[in-house]
Amino acid sequence: MSQFKTYWDEERETLAPEKRNQIILNRIQEQLHYVYNTLPFYKRIYDEHHFKPEDVKTLEDFTTKVPIITKKMLVEDQQKNPIYGSYAGDFKEEEIARIQGSSGTSGTPTFYQVSQEDWKRAADVHAMAQWCAGIRPDDVVQISFPFSLFFGGWGVIQGAERLGATVFPLGPVESEKQLELMNQIGSTVFSATPSYCMHLINKAKELGFNLKENTIKRLLVGGEAGGSLKGPKNLIANGWNASVHDCASASEMYPFQTNVECEAQQGVHVFNDEVYAEIVEKEDANSPVSMGEKGAIVYTHLWRKSQPMIRFWPGDESYMSEQRCSCGRTYPMLPEGVLGRLDDMIVVRGANIYPSAIENIVRKFSWSGPEYQVIVNKKGVMDEIKVIIEQNHLSIQEKLDPIGMKTEAEYHFKKQLGIRVQIDIHPQGTLPETIFKAKRVVDRRKEIIATK
Amino acid sequence: MSQFKTYWDEERETLAPEKRNQIILNRIQEQLHYVYNTLPFYKRIYDEHHFKPEDVKTLEDFTTKVPIITKKMLVEDQQKNPIYGSYAGDFKEEEIARIQGSSGTSGTPTFYQVSQEDWKRAADVHAMAQWCAGIRPDDVVQISFPFSLFFGGWGVIQGAERLGATVFPLGPVESEKQLELMNQIGSTVFSATPSYCMHLINKAKELGFNLKENTIKRLLVGGEAGGSLKGPKNLIANGWNASVHDCASASEMYPFQTNVECEAQQGVHVFNDEVYAEIVEKEDANSPVSMGEKGAIVYTHLWRKSQPMIRFWPGDESYMSEQRCSCGRTYPMLPEGVLGRLDDMIVVRGANIYPSAIENIVRKFSWSGPEYQVIVNKKGVMDEIKVIIEQNHLSIQEKLDPIGMKTEAEYHFKKQLGIRVQIDIHPQGTLPETIFKAKRVVDRRKEIIATK
Repeated sequence: MSQFKTYWDEERETLAPEKRNQIILNRIQEQLHYVYNTLPFYKRIYDEHHFKPEDVKTLEDFTTKVPIITKKMLVEDQQKNPIYGSYAGDFKEEEIARIQGSSGTSGTPTFYQVSQEDWKRAADVHAMAQWCAGIRPDDVVQISFPFSLFFGGWGVIQGAERLGATVFPLGPVESEKQLELMNQIGSTVFSATPSYCMHLINKAKELGFNLKENTIKRLLVGGEAGGSLKGPKNLIANGWNASVHDCASASEMYPFQTNVECEAQQGVHVFNDEVYAEIVEKEDANSPVSMGEKGAIVYTHLWRKSQPMIRFWPGDESYMSEQRCSCGRTYPMLPEGVLGRLDDMIVVRGANIYPSAIENIVRKFSWSGPEYQVIVNKKGVMDEIKVIIEQNHLSIQEKLDPIGMKTEAEYHFKKQLGIRVQIDIHPQGTLPETIFKAKRVVDRRKEIIATK
Repeated sequence: MSQFKTYWDEERETLAPEKRNQIILNRIQEQLHYVYNTLPFYKRIYDEHHFKPEDVKTLEDFTTKVPIITKKMLVEDQQKNPIYGSYAGDFKEEEIARIQGSSGTSGTPTFYQVSQEDWKRAADVHAMAQWCAGIRPDDVVQISFPFSLFFGGWGVIQGAERLGATVFPLGPVESEKQLELMNQIGSTVFSATPSYCMHLINKAKELGFNLKENTIKRLLVGGEAGGSLKGPKNLIANGWNASVHDCASASEMYPFQTNVECEAQQGVHVFNDEVYAEIVEKEDANSPVSMGEKGAIVYTHLWRKSQPMIRFWPGDESYMSEQRCSCGRTYPMLPEGVLGRLDDMIVVRGANIYPSAIENIVRKFSWSGPEYQVIVNKKGVMDEIKVIIEQNHLSIQEKLDPIGMKTEAEYHFKKQLGIRVQIDIHPQGTLPETIFKAKRVVDRRKEIIATK
């Protein structure tokens, strides 16, 4: 019997969904009035759509009537209304706690401003999320995310501090140091991207660390999709001998740990009374999809007043379930978390293929190594897809037959994706190693268009 | 009239020194009993010295009777008693807030463990320090120190968060980005090493940023000595058109901002009711020196229970004054902060020369650039000292006579240091740029010995 309580906030987390939905609706109505009356960005968009806050009388109204906002709209608005955009809110300097930013590697950086009140609330929400993932005051949380301009490690640290765990803010250091200090300190929780957790499994083998006997009990993963996909998740859990807890939404949605998997491991809980999440049709953000059906996820800040996001479209695909989790929390769930980014979708000969689907297949094979790459090309008018899979060290030692592997892989790809995929098998170490976020799809068709 | 209060903790900061000394003595006595009875490291050292806690009845007893501890002793003890040493204290995991470490570049890394109680107290002390330096809730604090294994930026962030300022945790990024975002965000406080502040003055000129018209009002400097030395300090203050506040003790002494310069700018206040500081003879740590006399500084944690340092010898030189500051704070002062590290002292032909003394001279010249280097060599049996000074861009444009500069420099070195120094003048950009902590002395005599 643990010395610690079961829930961070029992009343909130186990509330009857109907009661919670009433709270959510009230918050939505308040937020809609706030953004429409105070933030020129929303006023402009809502007026363009002839939408008025009072049009929302039910949760269904919210989904069907309120226009979405996208990252592109935020960037444009910040350019026209520097530095925080006309959706920032009119805060005095002393009311602001934090300024963070995005990298701007793919264009203009965006800036985030969090008020003191929103920042304090975020600490509590992050603590609730990490508590849900099983983190307790006697844990030592090793954080491999950077502490920098990007929100990266800040939410993790806020939550771990708030719940009273020991924070070990190592940040992104060489993998050897990451593993060595993990052992020395006896860290019990590791916070990283799923691809970095995968990478460390192999790095540990290479360096002679027995990861199965490490002190880590839980992996708190985020920063990219995949932490809830069965294939990679099982591989990571087995390699680390630890439970994997997928946890995150998007930087814009800070507090960003409002999706989190609990100890019962039946899917990702959605703290929808903090950040309301909807699943809608990919082509029409005002059309809800049925429970269990795949679609685009849309998020709404129910409490944040500084740069609140109302129906923000992160471009992620997911599906939702109302099945109850045995942990007792009454939140809806994302059974496989976020499946991947919609704009990562590859259309090959008319078939929609997600990199996550490919990863799920690659991770099934006993002989596959940590890295793989997807190359999409054109041969004449025909799209061609090739998957390079690394063969792991063990299968090389055991002299497994490469033709057998190739055949196995081709069979599974055809079966799962419905199309023929060319398989290349390379020895482990051929492809570049993933340290932070994996970039696994190379679409050469775009290069061909670009050079025309 | 400012909307904010004058002191963070008026009663504490303006207390009559005699009353404060009584509190200090009580704390010292409590800490001595605590470390002797609880921490094997201290028990062993004190027994070896036949010292008992009850021997301390006055502050003078403390200085004359209690043995010092050094970094070397801490490293050895951590090696024998991994991982936190036998001076760590018997804390349960849930009582620990933080684990930090040193880089270990010059040997074995050391690990720091801070209890929840000590960590909370540190936030308040760091806030008191930053408030003393004039930072208020309406400031935007841009931090260039890293957030990593090292204590670096963590104390700065703790204090700024606690007092309610806006934290902009940019960390160590390229200088251009540092300057660009400073302008965009409108940061009002910049936290960096003095040498990095110096570096940015020249980088700004190069990049066409008018640093004199920047939004920064205060520079909170630390991480190396020199923030209170008249020469470099004036140069930095003029270059930035901002006030320079020297602020820091040592990593071991976390909360490390217990030495800090206030807005009245009459010297560095020593919060000696938090970390007690003594100035003692360099050759005998149990011999106090008189007020105003130079010596080695020795620090004692009066409140910290996790890894408390009792008479820790950081190897820094300083002197103290009891003169009252016009700000009303009644703490003693270090009129020029920490002068430099004792082990950086160069003995040339029998003369003791500190790098800080050389810097003070170099910064006097109107024509000198940001970087300089000191090279110590042996010619036969004679020590030779050469100072390479960079000539700044302006003096090159104005075609100043290099022979005049050389003569001027030689004259001042002879006058200030009492020895003849060879001067080489190079154009700006010849020496490597200082980004974080400056390394300015190259002692070739050591290389000669090492290769023998």
